[in-house]
Amino acid sequence: MVTKIAEARIAIVGLGLMGGSLAAALSAHAGCRHVVGVARRSSTVSTAEALRFVERGYTDLAEGVRDADLVVLATPVRDILAKIGSIGPLLKPGCVVMDVGSTKTAICSAMESMPSHVQPLGGHPMCGKETSGLEMADPRLFRDRVFVLCPMERTGSQALDLGQALVEAIGARPMLLDPERHDRLVATTSHLPYLLAVALMRAADRRASEDPLVWRLAASGFRDTSRLAGGDTTMMLDILLTNKGPLLEALLAAQGELSALAGWLGDQDSAALKSALESARNRRAEEIVA
Amino acid sequence: MVTKIAEARIAIVGLGLMGGSLAAALSAHAGCRHVVGVARRSSTVSTAEALRFVERGYTDLAEGVRDADLVVLATPVRDILAKIGSIGPLLKPGCVVMDVGSTKTAICSAMESMPSHVQPLGGHPMCGKETSGLEMADPRLFRDRVFVLCPMERTGSQALDLGQALVEAIGARPMLLDPERHDRLVATTSHLPYLLAVALMRAADRRASEDPLVWRLAASGFRDTSRLAGGDTTMMLDILLTNKGPLLEALLAAQGELSALAGWLGDQDSAALKSALESARNRRAEEIVA
Repeated sequence: MVTKIAEARIAIVGLGLMGGSLAAALSAHAGCRHVVGVARRSSTVSTAEALRFVERGYTDLAEGVRDADLVVLATPVRDILAKIGSIGPLLKPGCVVMDVGSTKTAICSAMESMPSHVQPLGGHPMCGKETSGLEMADPRLFRDRVFVLCPMERTGSQALDLGQALVEAIGARPMLLDPERHDRLVATTSHLPYLLAVALMRAADRRASEDPLVWRLAASGFRDTSRLAGGDTTMMLDILLTNKGPLLEALLAAQGELSALAGWLGDQDSAALKSALESARNRRAEEIVA
Repeated sequence: MVTKIAEARIAIVGLGLMGGSLAAALSAHAGCRHVVGVARRSSTVSTAEALRFVERGYTDLAEGVRDADLVVLATPVRDILAKIGSIGPLLKPGCVVMDVGSTKTAICSAMESMPSHVQPLGGHPMCGKETSGLEMADPRLFRDRVFVLCPMERTGSQALDLGQALVEAIGARPMLLDPERHDRLVATTSHLPYLLAVALMRAADRRASEDPLVWRLAASGFRDTSRLAGGDTTMMLDILLTNKGPLLEALLAAQGELSALAGWLGDQDSAALKSALESARNRRAEEIVA
């Protein structure tokens, strides 16, 4: 089994923002000579080749992954789930199968059922942009970011080592987590912010149907708070639907906070309101880097 | 009555981010020779003088505004309300009194009761930063921003002209609005986003008390969505408390959107969820400049 990332034959399946950035980071910085890419459209393949993100690109999955020591699935979550169910027979013995999907419980559960000759390993880099597509790919996207890895009991130590080596090769910091814990955490840190941004846009849109000046008065605060609502909806829909339980819990928590804030405001309870605003401000200053 | 902004003696009361930026913009770009500032602390006055944001600074309100043709109140909203109640006798006949407070109904209502020898005019520039204080002042803060003006029936046309000239002198675009309409609009575009950011921080903080990894997994999406929660709490508290009715209405609308999203997610209603995400994304692409 290949253990050094520079020697591994790596196949990236899906060349959007994530897959494209990963291919670019491996090709540009990590000195990998054997990075190939698989995409649905031949135009995407040509672009990835022209940008030298991949040594060679394929539109045929079987061809693209045939020689791979390490396959990274980088399509939307429900497509990753479908590929996990069918890709096994296309892979050579000992091949490590990773993914970069934003939810991990459903994916790792599906990975458990892969044929025994492959080595599955869940993964999720904590980075992104609200834009999508290969055109926005950036080899520095992963720099200094946390990259969660979810090894299973069946995952061998060499496979995990290779996964960690990939993470380090692109400048990210590996963090081992079990899938359920990961999903509960990102429900709060990623998926809840997304839905708050969507709710803000929809509330403003409803207001705009009564008063069109809404958009003229929306300044930088509105723009930043609503930024995530500009994200790829296909990708986000898959994420939400595969993280239903933890996300409903996170939504409930946020709704509780909003109700409390509305209650204090309604009662003109200046002291309670001030204390809530200060707790939020202080915690952000302590925990969130500007 | 002075009608040209370059000839007017202007007194800015409050030299924080807004007042400081206004003084800087007037002194630097607009060629005003007579900009003075009033601040509570003598150290603020010295800094504003050293930076040449003001020709001269005062800690005494009566002294600072005595010769002014135009006074701009730039303190937190409840302090503006207090000053509106007491500043009249300190001003010379024909003096225009503007403010830059973020809510307008309470302020314009208080302005109605000012002595008849002064000319009140409500104002609110649609810009800001999550940081505060004179150190963050920026003469370009108002460039190309909407600056709402709320003239009253008692406001003379020359006073309104002088207010509009000030807005144009700092590079902003005047928009005339009545106070109630302004407050309903900014409840949706400014104050609701702020409370969503606060609710997000508090929900995450609660989650962090069970799993401290929350903050390690918070990436750029969380940072942007929570940005407004880092704002000045004294300023924000005044704003919320003086915009209770419209803000409660905006909160209710957002809570309704969140409940609908949670409902579709709970039912795994993929079509309804997708349609909601797409409507938010499309409207943002159309209306909010990146």
